[in-house]
Amino acid sequence: MPYVNVQILKGNVTREQKAQLVEEITGTLVRVLNKKPEKTHIVIQEIDPDNWGFSGQLTSAYQASDHPVSGN
Amino acid sequence: MPYVNVQILKGNVTREQKAQLVEEITGTLVRVLNKKPEKTHIVIQEIDPDNWGFSGQLTSAYQASDHPVSGN
Amino acid sequence: MPYVNVQILKGNVTREQKAQLVEEITGTLVRVLNKKPEKTHIVIQEIDPDNWGFSGQLTSAYQASDHPVSGN
Amino acid sequence: MPYVNVQILKGNVTREQKAQLVEEITGTLVRVLNKKPEKTHIVIQEIDPDNWGFSGQLTSAYQASDHPVSGN
Amino acid sequence: MPYVNVQILKGNVTREQKAQLVEEITGTLVRVLNKKPEKTHIVIQEIDPDNWGFSGQLTSAYQASDHPVSGN
Amino acid sequence: MPYVNVQILKGNVTREQKAQLVEEITGTLVRVLNKKPEKTHIVIQEIDPDNWGFSGQLTSAYQASDHPVSGN
Repeated sequence: MPYVNVQILKGNVTREQKAQLVEEITGTLVRVLNKKPEKTHIVIQEIDPDNWGFSGQLTSAYQASDHPVSGN
Repeated sequence: MPYVNVQILKGNVTREQKAQLVEEITGTLVRVLNKKPEKTHIVIQEIDPDNWGFSGQLTSAYQASDHPVSGN
Repeated sequence: MPYVNVQILKGNVTREQKAQLVEEITGTLVRVLNKKPEKTHIVIQEIDPDNWGFSGQLTSAYQASDHPVSGN
Repeated sequence: MPYVNVQILKGNVTREQKAQLVEEITGTLVRVLNKKPEKTHIVIQEIDPDNWGFSGQLTSAYQASDHPVSGN
Repeated sequence: MPYVNVQILKGNVTREQKAQLVEEITGTLVRVLNKKPEKTHIVIQEIDPDNWGFSGQLTSAYQASDHPVSGN
Repeated sequence: MPYVNVQILKGNVTREQKAQLVEEITGTLVRVLNKKPEKTHIVIQEIDPDNWGFSGQLTSAYQASDHPVSGN
């Protein structure tokens, strides 16, 4: 019965990437824990950089200062 | 002190339906567990079909293939 | 595809009460939103009163001071 | 490794207020539990008043009836 | 900044399986979304079958009736 | 109506520290967003190091290798 919640920063995530996430994470649960795909739900929530705090500041500020956006 | 989080697929859920969900779930918690309504919070999150994976694929793809939308 | 997370205070919740919660909340989702029971998952998490803060203090302290336990 | 999820009602929350929330909550975790800021993530989710149930009704209805909006 | 919450049924999940879940899901996020491992957190919550409702009943009852435990 | 979920590693967190977390985070929400304490709920979930993945491995393994436990 797995339920998986994935929270990531919003921005440029394509439908194909989401499909890939779902396919691979479901595959992991099937392979490692013998779960059934038809009982596996994965919810992706995309969070605005203004709503994700990291290291004491908003991610939007963290990125703007001196940190590259890629690989966030 | 119940806190309830309800995640459903986005699409055509009316304000009246949400009000009905809140009224009935609160009623259940009051009746079954003797909870107080004024300490019962229910948060509904509507998830885009592109962001809900089921059975290894996005719900949007699952619906488009051969599964009816109703009763999802 | 509903996923429901119910957080309540730990203490004296019986298996029968949990079964009743699941039956009623599932019934609500089927009746109000036409959801399918076999795609409806409900996770109940019981939280220790030392781990639930309300009104600025731990529930365990709140209950010990001047508030009745019932109907929490 | 703290992860903190903050759910509040949507409406008039400024970027400055969010930054203040993140700064203060991170500070609390550092001061009280000796956590490292660079391992502390805080996700803020703003919920529409039509999607937040309280006291058996939607917050949007609760506010419209006889309760002031401020301090919700 | 991914945060992933994995909820599974409690019972016979080994530490090795959990390590495998974490390694593979992190790998997926790195490969598909270019995320950094040192900003990727995965929390696994194991839920008692008495606390997971599926198809209108507790999983513990669902398993006891006529459904095999494996692949739950 | 804030609801706050705090997930931290299990281990040596005292009741006094939890009370301090609740008092300070509630204070922040009152001060920054004008929230009412009697509508503010904070749930603390303590996660076993075997159930928290970070940087591609379980925290229990991460701590055992070459990283100090303090300030995790």
